[in-house]
Amino acid sequence: MIKVAIVGYGNIGKYSVDALRAAPDMELVGIVRRPGSEPVHGIRTVADIEELGHVEVALLCTPTRSVEETALPLLARGINTVDSFDIHDKIVDLRRSLGAQAIKHNSVAVISAGWDPGTDSVMRSMMLAMAPKGITYTNFGPGMSMGHSVVARSKEGVEDALSLTIPTGSGIHRRMVYVVLKEGAKFSDVELAIKSDSYFSHDDTRVQQVPDIDALKDMGHGVLMERKGVSGTTQNQMFKFEMRINNPALTAQVMVASARASMKLGAGCYTLPEIAPMDFLPGDREELIAQLV
Amino acid sequence: MIKVAIVGYGNIGKYSVDALRAAPDMELVGIVRRPGSEPVHGIRTVADIEELGHVEVALLCTPTRSVEETALPLLARGINTVDSFDIHDKIVDLRRSLGAQAIKHNSVAVISAGWDPGTDSVMRSMMLAMAPKGITYTNFGPGMSMGHSVVARSKEGVEDALSLTIPTGSGIHRRMVYVVLKEGAKFSDVELAIKSDSYFSHDDTRVQQVPDIDALKDMGHGVLMERKGVSGTTQNQMFKFEMRINNPALTAQVMVASARASMKLGAGCYTLPEIAPMDFLPGDREELIAQLV
Repeated sequence: MIKVAIVGYGNIGKYSVDALRAAPDMELVGIVRRPGSEPVHGIRTVADIEELGHVEVALLCTPTRSVEETALPLLARGINTVDSFDIHDKIVDLRRSLGAQAIKHNSVAVISAGWDPGTDSVMRSMMLAMAPKGITYTNFGPGMSMGHSVVARSKEGVEDALSLTIPTGSGIHRRMVYVVLKEGAKFSDVELAIKSDSYFSHDDTRVQQVPDIDALKDMGHGVLMERKGVSGTTQNQMFKFEMRINNPALTAQVMVASARASMKLGAGCYTLPEIAPMDFLPGDREELIAQLV
Repeated sequence: MIKVAIVGYGNIGKYSVDALRAAPDMELVGIVRRPGSEPVHGIRTVADIEELGHVEVALLCTPTRSVEETALPLLARGINTVDSFDIHDKIVDLRRSLGAQAIKHNSVAVISAGWDPGTDSVMRSMMLAMAPKGITYTNFGPGMSMGHSVVARSKEGVEDALSLTIPTGSGIHRRMVYVVLKEGAKFSDVELAIKSDSYFSHDDTRVQQVPDIDALKDMGHGVLMERKGVSGTTQNQMFKFEMRINNPALTAQVMVASARASMKLGAGCYTLPEIAPMDFLPGDREELIAQLV
């Protein structure tokens, strides 16, 4: 059994408990939360991972911006880390930083192990291998965007906000932003503040005032990835990958699969397309081949 | 540049020439054909691979049943091999045989490197990693099945035959078999012989007499793979992969990508899901990550 700890206990941390319990080869040794946090029923909850004894892999279910500072000391202790870091243009930097630390301390970091970045990155890589020339469009949604919701919520006069991503094809998206206003706030000011933010200004953004956000929350999400490309000199090769999923449930499942893979990899830092797909799966290699290949 | 030879020059061999020429990091050093075969215009054609000098990878574009006997002596010479061996229930045996030889001679064999088995196997592995419980259905077609056509052609009274695979959902297929009869052959005898062969008896098989097969030939093919499964304890996670492709063009492209991957792997034998997807791609690793992850 692979000894796994969960660090952080938000949505993804909660779903990780489910995914670890469903895994035949994993043992959840405990949850690491900030000192003073409530203990989680039935699971050992500690403030410092050292209290858990021998841990082989830590699932970092903390906010994306704290991934690096959380991972570095764990890797130094020889604990493998798995995160779902999702700031696309900072992934190469994170890989360098965690990679150097992992190699130094003979540990493994699997980064950006969610669905995008993550399993979608694997699909994009495979589509590119199958048809080296062409364009891949990744269309997201309909589903909530956490990042965009946080930005909308940060605007003056906004009590609460939710940003939905709506795919309109060819990788173009509409943002539907639902806001609850603070007393006295003017809707037109809030609308302008949101639409002019760089997070929204490149997309067709529609802002609507609502009395309540909670009734709109749905953790379902979707992806439609399409590539039309060329294999050799043969045009019009068409590929499509589509999914409709519960967002944190899939992220947690991918992180657990990546924890398993981390035990089979040499020291260093890996994104998902750098890992052999079969390393994500439990069980005997030849049986997997007979079943899947 | 990776020095690649093509062994065998049927459909896949021809499309491999295109795929190799389109690859930025590959050099086609020649084609190996049976002694007495016609030379291929503009490409060095030899009867023995040794005449080509230094070869790093051989693409085995020979019939599937001769893959093992063709690969073994090449691996013994330290030449990596790539094949598109497609007899699903013999893949584990082939992997053992070529694996032992490859390890002994420090070479690499990538086997079953087409689209099914091949890239579809990668998709099945990823879907299983994303939702460990559930069922994956792989639906093929519409498209020609080479294996089924060969069996139909082998029946007494058949001059020529073509078997089309038609998907009818949930991994169930109909076989549409078009036959040209030999003079004096009775259609009902041929129909019975085909329908009672174990290749066809498990499927809904329809046999039709036609005056000519050539007019029906279309190398287009398709796949629709669907999985509904469970991530952790979350039900109803839905995944779908679909493609519409030129069959030999995609097979050749996957073989060329696998030739590239073979140069990055340790000695041994690998199926496609045992290879990191990024190893199939040319170019700088960090640039690939920035683009794809």
